[in-house]
Amino acid sequence: MHTFNIKKPSREIEPAILEKIDFLTKPKGSLGKLESLAAKICLIQQTLEPKLSKPHNILFAADHGIIAEGVSVSPKEVTWQQLSHFSHGGAGINFLCNQHGFKLVLVDAGVDYDIPAGRGIIDCKIRKSTDNFLHGPAMTLEECELAIARGASVVDQVHATGCNVVSFGEMGSGNTSSSSMWMHAFTGIPLAECIGAGAGLDKPGVAHKLDVLTRAWENYTGDDSAESYIAWFGGFEMVMAVGGMLRAAELGMTILVDGFIMTACILAASKLNPDVLEYAVFGHQGDESGHKLMLQALNADPILHLGLRLGEGSGAVCAYPILESAVRMINEMDNFQSVGVTKYF
Amino acid sequence: MHTFNIKKPSREIEPAILEKIDFLTKPKGSLGKLESLAAKICLIQQTLEPKLSKPHNILFAADHGIIAEGVSVSPKEVTWQQLSHFSHGGAGINFLCNQHGFKLVLVDAGVDYDIPAGRGIIDCKIRKSTDNFLHGPAMTLEECELAIARGASVVDQVHATGCNVVSFGEMGSGNTSSSSMWMHAFTGIPLAECIGAGAGLDKPGVAHKLDVLTRAWENYTGDDSAESYIAWFGGFEMVMAVGGMLRAAELGMTILVDGFIMTACILAASKLNPDVLEYAVFGHQGDESGHKLMLQALNADPILHLGLRLGEGSGAVCAYPILESAVRMINEMDNFQSVGVTKYF
Repeated sequence: MHTFNIKKPSREIEPAILEKIDFLTKPKGSLGKLESLAAKICLIQQTLEPKLSKPHNILFAADHGIIAEGVSVSPKEVTWQQLSHFSHGGAGINFLCNQHGFKLVLVDAGVDYDIPAGRGIIDCKIRKSTDNFLHGPAMTLEECELAIARGASVVDQVHATGCNVVSFGEMGSGNTSSSSMWMHAFTGIPLAECIGAGAGLDKPGVAHKLDVLTRAWENYTGDDSAESYIAWFGGFEMVMAVGGMLRAAELGMTILVDGFIMTACILAASKLNPDVLEYAVFGHQGDESGHKLMLQALNADPILHLGLRLGEGSGAVCAYPILESAVRMINEMDNFQSVGVTKYF
Repeated sequence: MHTFNIKKPSREIEPAILEKIDFLTKPKGSLGKLESLAAKICLIQQTLEPKLSKPHNILFAADHGIIAEGVSVSPKEVTWQQLSHFSHGGAGINFLCNQHGFKLVLVDAGVDYDIPAGRGIIDCKIRKSTDNFLHGPAMTLEECELAIARGASVVDQVHATGCNVVSFGEMGSGNTSSSSMWMHAFTGIPLAECIGAGAGLDKPGVAHKLDVLTRAWENYTGDDSAESYIAWFGGFEMVMAVGGMLRAAELGMTILVDGFIMTACILAASKLNPDVLEYAVFGHQGDESGHKLMLQALNADPILHLGLRLGEGSGAVCAYPILESAVRMINEMDNFQSVGVTKYF
C-alpha cells in the first residue's frame, strides 16, 4: 500500500511559540483553547506568524452495501439526492462554507447513480456502492489502495491552489455503520459502545444495527492488519478521506476534523501513519454515541460541542472561525513590552 | 428606580418557527444548538427571517474600592492601561471585534484616572472608583440609578445606528469580587462556591478573597432588595452593563452574554426585570469557578466552552459566528419540499 512520508513537526520552535503567547497582553492562559490552537498551528507551520490560506471542504460521497441490512433510516437514494443538492447550494454545508469562505469540493467516490456531467462533481468513482460487509469485504485491497490514491490526488489539486487548511466531509447513507466497525477494530471498545442512532434510528433500530454489526464482526476473516480492516468495513468516501488526510499531513496542511465519521477516518489514517495526528485539529464533538469515546481514544479535545450530527463537514467548517481567532490572536495582539501595560500574569 | 418596559416575546409564532426548522434539508434536530439558537433569535425578532445587524461590543471600565483588600492580582492601574490599550487596538477584544465585524464602544464608567480626550472613550464616569464594600456600600442608590441610566443611554446610541445585537464587556481590576457577591446574593449559593481565581490568584489568594468577601457579606446592612445588593456590592461598569442589558431587551435587541462578570450582570438585571432573559444568548462558559453554577441557576446553555477568562466581552464576540451560522441556517437552507430530497428524518 502507498506510504506517506509525513514529517513530524520539530518541537524546537515550541519554547518560542509559548513565550510569544505568554507575553501577549492578557493574563497568562486566559485565552484558553485559543492559545493551545495557536500553538498547534504554529507547530504545524513551523512559524511564529501562522496563516490560514484558502480553506477547502472536500466532501466525498458514496453508497454502502451494508444498507441492505436496514441499518440506516435514510434510504440509499438520499446519497445522490443530497450530493446533487450540495452542488446546487442550499444544503447545510453550503451556508457554512459561504459564511467562512470555504471552497466546497464535491467528489463522487462511489455513488450508486450515474452522475450527470457539468455539475462540478469530481469523478473518482471506484464503483457503484461497496459490497455488503455482513457477508464479506466491502471492497478489495486493490480498490482500497485506489481510493486512498484518489483521495490524496484531490488534496493535491486543492493544495496547488494555495490552500493550507482543509476539512473533509462525507455523504453516504449507512456510513455510521462502517465508522463503528473501524472504531471497534482500532480501539477495542465494545461494539455496543461504538454504535449510535446515525441519522435518527429509534431504539429497536439501534438494537438491530448492533446485531447486524456483531454478526459482521464475527464473519470477518481478514488478517487483522489496518489495511484489512479499512478495506473490509470501509466505504469508498471514507477511504478517500483517509488518503486525503494522509496526503494533507504529508503536505504540511492543517486538517480540520469533522464529526463521528471523519473521526473514524483519522483514526484509521493514524493506524497507517500515526504522525497524521500532528496535523489534525478536531472541530466538533457530536451527540453520536461513541464519538466522545473515540475522541478520548485519540486524546483529542474538540473545539465545539454543539450537538451537530449532520456530517458533510459541517462540524469542522462551523469550528473554523475559532481556529481563525487563534491565528489572529498570535498575529494581531500586542505584547506587554511593546504597549506599556503592567504584566499582571 | 427606572423601570424598563420589556415585552415578553409572543409564543404565537413558535410552531411556525419549529416547523420551518424541521423541514430544512437535514435530519430533524441534526444541527443541534444551531437550531435552538435560530429559534431563539426568531422569537426575539418575531420573524421567520431573522437578521443580525451591526453588532456592537460595549465595554464598560471602572475601578473598585474593594481592591484595597488585596483580592486581585492585577493592580488598579491595569484598568486604565488596558482601556487605553483597547482604544489603540492590539488587545484581545480588538482582534475578535475585527474578525467578526463588531464595533467596539469604550465607556469610562468610573476609572480612577483622568482619561484624555480624543481617544474615542465615552465619558460616563460616575466617579473615580467605587468605595470599598468591605466597610459599606460601594455606591449610593442615586449613583446606582445614574449608572443604570447611563448604561441604557449608551445602548440607545448604538441602537440608533441600526444595531440589533449587542454584547457587553468589562475591564475593572477587582470586579470578579463584585460578581461573586451578586451571585451569592441572588442565587443563595454559598460564597465559597461563588469565588474563583479571577485573573490568576493562587490558592492562598483565593482563601484571602473568601475571607474578605465573607466579612463584607456580614457587614451588609441594606434592605435585601435587588437594588440594594446591586448598589452595595456593584461596580460602576457592571451597573452600567445592567442598565444596558435592560434597555437592549426593551428595544428588542439580542443580548450576547460574555463570561462570569457579565453573567452576574444579567443575573442582577433579571432581578430587576426577569424578562430580560428572553433576549439573552449566552456566549461562553469559562473556567472561573462558579460560572457553571451561575449559568445553571439561570438555566442557560452557553454556546462555547473554550476556557477563556479574559473578560472584555471576548467570550461573547468569539461566539458570534455560531449565532450567525444559526441565522444563516434558517435563511439560506432549502427545505425538503422545494428541492426533491426524500425527507428521511
